Amino acid sequence: MYEKCVKLLEERGVQLDDIAELVLFLQGKYHPDVLKDEVLLMVKGVIAKREVQHAILTGIMIDKIAESDVEMDADLRRILLADESLYGIDEVLAYGICNLYGSIALTNYGYIDREKPGILANINDHGKQCNVYLDDIVGAIAASAASKIAHTHGK
Amino acid sequence: MYEKCVKLLEERGVQLDDIAELVLFLQGKYHPDVLKDEVLLMVKGVIAKREVQHAILTGIMIDKIAESDVEMDADLRRILLADESLYGIDEVLAYGICNLYGSIALTNYGYIDREKPGILANINDHGKQCNVYLDDIVGAIAASAASKIAHTHGK
Amino acid sequence: MYEKCVKLLEERGVQLDDIAELVLFLQGKYHPDVLKDEVLLMVKGVIAKREVQHAILTGIMIDKIAESDVEMDADLRRILLADESLYGIDEVLAYGICNLYGSIALTNYGYIDREKPGILANINDHGKQCNVYLDDIVGAIAASAASKIAHTHGK
Amino acid sequence: MYEKCVKLLEERGVQLDDIAELVLFLQGKYHPDVLKDEVLLMVKGVIAKREVQHAILTGIMIDKIAESDVEMDADLRRILLADESLYGIDEVLAYGICNLYGSIALTNYGYIDREKPGILANINDHGKQCNVYLDDIVGAIAASAASKIAHTHGK
Repeated sequence: MYEKCVKLLEERGVQLDDIAELVLFLQGKYHPDVLKDEVLLMVKGVIAKREVQHAILTGIMIDKIAESDVEMDADLRRILLADESLYGIDEVLAYGICNLYGSIALTNYGYIDREKPGILANINDHGKQCNVYLDDIVGAIAASAASKIAHTHGK
Repeated sequence: MYEKCVKLLEERGVQLDDIAELVLFLQGKYHPDVLKDEVLLMVKGVIAKREVQHAILTGIMIDKIAESDVEMDADLRRILLADESLYGIDEVLAYGICNLYGSIALTNYGYIDREKPGILANINDHGKQCNVYLDDIVGAIAASAASKIAHTHGK
Repeated sequence: MYEKCVKLLEERGVQLDDIAELVLFLQGKYHPDVLKDEVLLMVKGVIAKREVQHAILTGIMIDKIAESDVEMDADLRRILLADESLYGIDEVLAYGICNLYGSIALTNYGYIDREKPGILANINDHGKQCNVYLDDIVGAIAASAASKIAHTHGK
Repeated sequence: MYEKCVKLLEERGVQLDDIAELVLFLQGKYHPDVLKDEVLLMVKGVIAKREVQHAILTGIMIDKIAESDVEMDADLRRILLADESLYGIDEVLAYGICNLYGSIALTNYGYIDREKPGILANINDHGKQCNVYLDDIVGAIAASAASKIAHTHGK
């Protein structure tokens, strides 16, 4: 399942390395000496968790259905394709991930969701691909990995 | 949007009256004199909320895709059709609803999710229809309406 | 810190064994063969987590201040000593614990909070001691340990 | 209770106007034409909610006990007086407020908690007063009011 999730993220345009960069953006200020290798290990640790894998599979499934021509509710498709900011179920899913990693993960996610650094900017500027869930899931994984680093190294 | 959500719930086998019965199950002990009409009003108030409507549309969409022959990840479909108990994204969505109504809604939901009274038992015994999200959404709406009653009448 | 938290729980009337009994109440149906020793290990694992320890120290501190004659807001003291059901900050703290263990912990907590089995009944019938936070913290630790068992053994 | 909460915030150094400024910081970009008067009304609406009042009373009570010479656990006092970043129960309380206002409130809170604009910078640089809970509560009220504006005006 882990391999499948990593491959799915890559298919949608996100490498593990991109997520590691987001973690460095979040924690670099506090821990300039944390090595990329350690960060990558933390990212992989988050994706190894069953509930995170379920969130990845479910969220990206919704994105793919929305961009396909499969029949679905027209209002919901319009909302998803326009990435309407008052639609918040994608954030709800992201919080389902962050909650597992405590309050630091939650504030990190809120911050990164507004700042949209690195890959998150690319994801949001995506052409035909629907990335409503993808960016929140990627942000939540990064925020969770950053929380693990804070708890390991102090903050 | 409200009308569409009510109709969608009915199509999947849930009447507003069924949800009102769940609310009475939850709050009847504390408020035996609360009228069904008032309870129904509370249920409608919950469904009138934009974020609840988005949860209904999204959750039921997933259920319908899972039971259809639309192409999707085989593992995720297997998990959904078997309603595997370690899959928890449906509960995450339900908590997204309950959180809006405070801590009483959350504990009510946890209780009803284990007890499966009334319509929730029927939903869980559903034949070919996939109801992974439906039961959690219905439980969350009932738990939220019960929380509103507790806050209005005292508990 | 771990030793201190266990001692603090004991001073307030809760043994680790009482919490293990709650876990068996929650998971015994699904895993009748899980040994008490394993359950105790899970309970200890939950209490070993820094964020859980902070919740224990903070919650019990509030209980102790409320029952003392230290000056504090009179309305808040009245609410705490009466354990008013519309006060929900104790549940908020409990959810801070459960969230770390995923959705199964959350529903388990909601269930146990309504049913009040075992030690939770004693805590709620407490004479002069203020236990507003204690019961929710104990319930949350048990619900979290039960979630760990479900994820380890399947459910 | 509402009057008492406003007075308590003022005693600790926060005016309603300071909170309104935070809301403008959060939403000004999207709604440059929202009037300060409307923002103030939203802030008051958040504080009028029972669960928010309970969070204010409880959080500030903890701050005041920590800075006093009332006997309490020495480790917890040290953590609070140092405002240790790995202590997250204050954020848990803040999320208890934000959750009532949906996912926009949660991301707004995470953002403001990192950026520390306006009064939040002052609160964090506080001399002898312990403000561990105060800043998170104030941030959560502002984030919640901003969410109400987003839902009223679109975002």
